[in-house]
Amino acid sequence: MRTVSQDALRRQLREVFNAWGVSRENSDIIVENMVESDLRGIDSHGVGMLPKYDEYRRNGALDPKANMRIVRDFGAIALIDADHGLGHAPATRAMQMACDKAEQFGVGVASVRNSNHFGAAGVYASMAADRGLIGMCMTGTTQRSVLPTFGKEPRFSTNPIAFAAPAKRNNAFSLDMATSTVAVGKLNIARRAEKPLPIGWAHDDQGRPTTDPVAALSATPKRLSPLGGTRELGSHKGYGLAVMVDILSSVLSGSLIGGHDPKTGDRNKYINVGHFCLALNPEAFREEGEFGDNMDDLLDMLRDTIPVDKDQPVLVAGDPEYAEHARRSAEGVPMTDILAGEIREVAEQCGAPYLLGN
Amino acid sequence: MRTVSQDALRRQLREVFNAWGVSRENSDIIVENMVESDLRGIDSHGVGMLPKYDEYRRNGALDPKANMRIVRDFGAIALIDADHGLGHAPATRAMQMACDKAEQFGVGVASVRNSNHFGAAGVYASMAADRGLIGMCMTGTTQRSVLPTFGKEPRFSTNPIAFAAPAKRNNAFSLDMATSTVAVGKLNIARRAEKPLPIGWAHDDQGRPTTDPVAALSATPKRLSPLGGTRELGSHKGYGLAVMVDILSSVLSGSLIGGHDPKTGDRNKYINVGHFCLALNPEAFREEGEFGDNMDDLLDMLRDTIPVDKDQPVLVAGDPEYAEHARRSAEGVPMTDILAGEIREVAEQCGAPYLLGN
Repeated sequence: MRTVSQDALRRQLREVFNAWGVSRENSDIIVENMVESDLRGIDSHGVGMLPKYDEYRRNGALDPKANMRIVRDFGAIALIDADHGLGHAPATRAMQMACDKAEQFGVGVASVRNSNHFGAAGVYASMAADRGLIGMCMTGTTQRSVLPTFGKEPRFSTNPIAFAAPAKRNNAFSLDMATSTVAVGKLNIARRAEKPLPIGWAHDDQGRPTTDPVAALSATPKRLSPLGGTRELGSHKGYGLAVMVDILSSVLSGSLIGGHDPKTGDRNKYINVGHFCLALNPEAFREEGEFGDNMDDLLDMLRDTIPVDKDQPVLVAGDPEYAEHARRSAEGVPMTDILAGEIREVAEQCGAPYLLGN
Repeated sequence: MRTVSQDALRRQLREVFNAWGVSRENSDIIVENMVESDLRGIDSHGVGMLPKYDEYRRNGALDPKANMRIVRDFGAIALIDADHGLGHAPATRAMQMACDKAEQFGVGVASVRNSNHFGAAGVYASMAADRGLIGMCMTGTTQRSVLPTFGKEPRFSTNPIAFAAPAKRNNAFSLDMATSTVAVGKLNIARRAEKPLPIGWAHDDQGRPTTDPVAALSATPKRLSPLGGTRELGSHKGYGLAVMVDILSSVLSGSLIGGHDPKTGDRNKYINVGHFCLALNPEAFREEGEFGDNMDDLLDMLRDTIPVDKDQPVLVAGDPEYAEHARRSAEGVPMTDILAGEIREVAEQCGAPYLLGN
């Protein structure tokens, strides 16, 4: 394990994207979004994705030289075609367009089609909150890994919902959640710790709930549970939310579902992920300043709730990420030797310098 | 138990609302929404609410003679003041305004403040789908009954999310879910059956998870779990979604949180519930007909998923309600003698005829 400064991370990523032929403009956005994810502690969606992006690039599923274009700009909505590049730049553009439209019309929506993995959804929702707006971001995915309730085969993936709303004294409320109970990373943690899984996390290759992390991880494809975990605890709700996310992100934009054509079940050459960005202007609804004051009242009330255990206070969505962001901004981003080795390989393959040390 | 025809139900409700002084225009909307909820099998949000509405009316928390008014109509958004009447008519108006705006701008949002209980959120989302649009509806609530993760005291309630999207060959996808694991009704069912509760449904009066339905029901106020049930299974996600619903419904419109002022913890004379309605026009994003075709592809794929148990096929959100709607439209709405007795009392108290038989 080593600790890497955010600046070293930025330099390393820029070198790789430059070697891949990503435009400087797009590279700057991708790098900022990836580093922001790592600073928040969302390790699964930051620099840790680089080896996967390289795999997509090498097998032709990702075009580093992509030039996104706006294909519709109508009233309070827009549609962007990502041209099969990484999703970070088109989703950033989409959220900024949604915000522009929200400032003009009170609400704005922009969708992205023909895209790819875009990092952490919460980073986009925060862009709206940084402008004093409410932001919502969802995305389709690159694969199938989550079961519909009662189903034996996965049909979609962790389909995240991110939502951010600005306050005055408090940090913005910032929810960034998969609509599955957990992501695959948690199964690996349990496997390494030789601990059983709780029922409600994952299934074996027959779609049966399992407590065995090895059985869950060896199922191909994986079979995670929708939020709720079991029918008795409401997995049909997590399933419903996941489909909502795919309707808004994938169907509305004209993209695939979990990288598969829902009609034929086939994968295409490209993954064709869709994203959904929405922004709302609180000042279109409330008098100047009222919304922020009332957000503070709500967040204060939640934090002031008497806890069951006095050592575990009630948190608000975003609290752990804000704390981690402050810590890692000061101390750097921890990185396993395995990931550092993988990044070295990615760099060597494209002729970029490796900058993260031995 | 008796069975009541939907027409008898309509006549009975009209008589009561007329005696209360509700305008004919508002009464027609309230009656249709309540009966629609009962036809869908959502017994908790239809005619079963009448005794509660009467209680609100008698203690002054609900003004049957309310005249809603549009207080903001700006670009793609609107804000309606419900004037402390029942929520059905203002929320219907809000969803229709959101749809009008979505047809004009691609997306539209309308919020309602100073409102009250509005029945089933799914009924409003369906209004958009009936017009070929995507609809989303959320609402704040009249009480506090759900714990934030780690909390001992409830801070909000079942904060529902409803979402509907039209297809071509298939019924519209129609999700209508509380962001709690279950509603109070399920605790009563377990109590009457003398069955233990699963961990993840509810807590005792100390905020501890309980399997005892009597302990859960005797807690005042109730302490239900957010969706996910426990921290290990993701209750922080259900908690986060519930707060998102209150931000969009209550804070954005300028309403209370679960009937309480979040700053002082006090209740006011009025409950001041807020609602949120959003509509999206798929034809602003896609070519003519593509969205409906792709919705069919998605819904067909989900239904065609191989099930774990061949006798329990994979369903799509809305399927149980569509089946119940067909059944009850033909056969009538089942009603317990206790509820019929309560409705008789409501009718007698306001001098309306009682029409549902002995």
